[in-house]
Amino acid sequence: MKLELNSPLDMHLHLRDGDMLKVVAPLSAKSFSGAIIMPNLVPPITDLDMLRSYKNRIKDAIGDESFALYMTLFFKDSYDYEFLKEAKEFISGIKLYPAGITTNSERGVSKIDTNSLKMTLEAMSELEIPLLIHGESNGFVMDREMEFVPIYEELAESFPKLTIIMEHITTKESASALKRHKNLFATITLHHLLITLDDVAGGLLAPHLFCKPIAKREEDREALLNLALSGDEKVMFGSDSAPHPKSAKESCGCAAGVFTAPIALQALAELFEKHSKLENLQKFVSDNAQNIYKISPPKKRVILEKKPFLVPDSYGEVVPMFAKSELSWQISSIS
Amino acid sequence: MKLELNSPLDMHLHLRDGDMLKVVAPLSAKSFSGAIIMPNLVPPITDLDMLRSYKNRIKDAIGDESFALYMTLFFKDSYDYEFLKEAKEFISGIKLYPAGITTNSERGVSKIDTNSLKMTLEAMSELEIPLLIHGESNGFVMDREMEFVPIYEELAESFPKLTIIMEHITTKESASALKRHKNLFATITLHHLLITLDDVAGGLLAPHLFCKPIAKREEDREALLNLALSGDEKVMFGSDSAPHPKSAKESCGCAAGVFTAPIALQALAELFEKHSKLENLQKFVSDNAQNIYKISPPKKRVILEKKPFLVPDSYGEVVPMFAKSELSWQISSIS
Repeated sequence: MKLELNSPLDMHLHLRDGDMLKVVAPLSAKSFSGAIIMPNLVPPITDLDMLRSYKNRIKDAIGDESFALYMTLFFKDSYDYEFLKEAKEFISGIKLYPAGITTNSERGVSKIDTNSLKMTLEAMSELEIPLLIHGESNGFVMDREMEFVPIYEELAESFPKLTIIMEHITTKESASALKRHKNLFATITLHHLLITLDDVAGGLLAPHLFCKPIAKREEDREALLNLALSGDEKVMFGSDSAPHPKSAKESCGCAAGVFTAPIALQALAELFEKHSKLENLQKFVSDNAQNIYKISPPKKRVILEKKPFLVPDSYGEVVPMFAKSELSWQISSIS
Repeated sequence: MKLELNSPLDMHLHLRDGDMLKVVAPLSAKSFSGAIIMPNLVPPITDLDMLRSYKNRIKDAIGDESFALYMTLFFKDSYDYEFLKEAKEFISGIKLYPAGITTNSERGVSKIDTNSLKMTLEAMSELEIPLLIHGESNGFVMDREMEFVPIYEELAESFPKLTIIMEHITTKESASALKRHKNLFATITLHHLLITLDDVAGGLLAPHLFCKPIAKREEDREALLNLALSGDEKVMFGSDSAPHPKSAKESCGCAAGVFTAPIALQALAELFEKHSKLENLQKFVSDNAQNIYKISPPKKRVILEKKPFLVPDSYGEVVPMFAKSELSWQISSIS
């Protein structure tokens, strides 16, 4: 059995920098046509010089001009219309982090209220620059995303022309908020379609499945799965693939992030086939994103074949999801 | 400031076997007067020969006759009155594990219903042998204890003369069930008085705070804290101190268990002082247990002093809770 995917896109990707960038960037460029690149470096990407030079470092790491780099800035409420007008041609969105909520988010926004963000968000609405949000409160780990939903809704209502992407959603509450607001959209990761907290901490502790937002309950996983499998036009695949060295994941006090970029399409094919929804995978991994972001990614034809694929135990220093286990689909050709 | 504790008891202790036993047993014997010794070895302790020889191995490891070893058998529904009558003089209780629910519990009870356990539980009632239970369902990790509460209540009602100990309770639901049934009692660990899931997985992942049952929410922690601080006569300190080698805790897929035995009294003194309840610590760490189990432990006088105590980074291969950090109380003399 074969499956053709055209111009697959990863709408939420962490490429890091330095040596890690050199390891992971080519892996995404190989099987994807383009990706939204997250700006949470240290220091975060907050001006166009940093953006240009990061984009060049990524290009050098990939050495393949055909991979579209959809760059993002790290949100600051000091961004004004003039700056954004200039920035617009270099970016595909601006990523907002609540301060300190996840890896390298220390310089995020400490208080998210529509008034203090008004200037920047109105300019983004007018310039049609999407706002990407890591939506978590600083509450109890299992409640953080649910507690953030009212903020998503207030932003959606206050800025009805603003395209708002709820990043890596993990709860049924986010799934339903999505349906209530025309201008709310979402990315969903591979791992949140597959795991719950039981997989992270229900048996032995599984550091390689530890991520932020943390995986929730089965009913949450099912709500996300229904959105993805149905090809719902408001959701896009975003791996949130976040590499950390094996040492940082397995040491005491491990870092948050699941590395899925090189195995995501194969695992998604397996999942969508299992639910007899292969026909909707193209929407989830590309078509919806093209419509939401109004982008036309480079043509790339990825043929997957139903043949066993043994996932490597690591890529460089990074351990991927499904390390050493077998997926039922593999990539047979890319053109 | 000084605090005198008389004959402190650890009513839920894992001493393991072999080299690990030699490391951890003397640490408990040093500051405690006695302990309930859990039977979940591989294979579990299910007859009196195994019990006697394990008790002797513990004695050899401690080399101190003054430490009371309150031994337990691993529950089997084949234990009959004759066997239990003989066993009674060697044991202080019988520990029931749902099958596969925690470390070395594979041979536990797969279906807990009053009928299939009737013979054994009626004999235990008559012989006044306490039933110690690890109360978790096989459901979602955050719900497992809550889902088990009805089973606790059914057992309490079906066997009103049976003393039932809800081991290492972690939820407000267990705390309130305790009050509804005359014959329900509970042990509470040090770590469940101090941490929630936020401490395990809210920031970085903290394998040394990963345990079963997993730490729950703040309102659960507060319910346990109120029981302990008030000196409630139905609760006893049980460390559930469970040693695993550093390698097993920090490797990918880490084992469940927090090692607190050597630092528990110091940390409890700090906690009870913080809440101005030092006067109730004696009840929590000894008096209540003596009444519930009808035991008179060896006399041991432990004097704690309010002086900084730097917790070692490890005891042998085992990393304790509060490793490398400072507690405000230390043990100044033991007689």
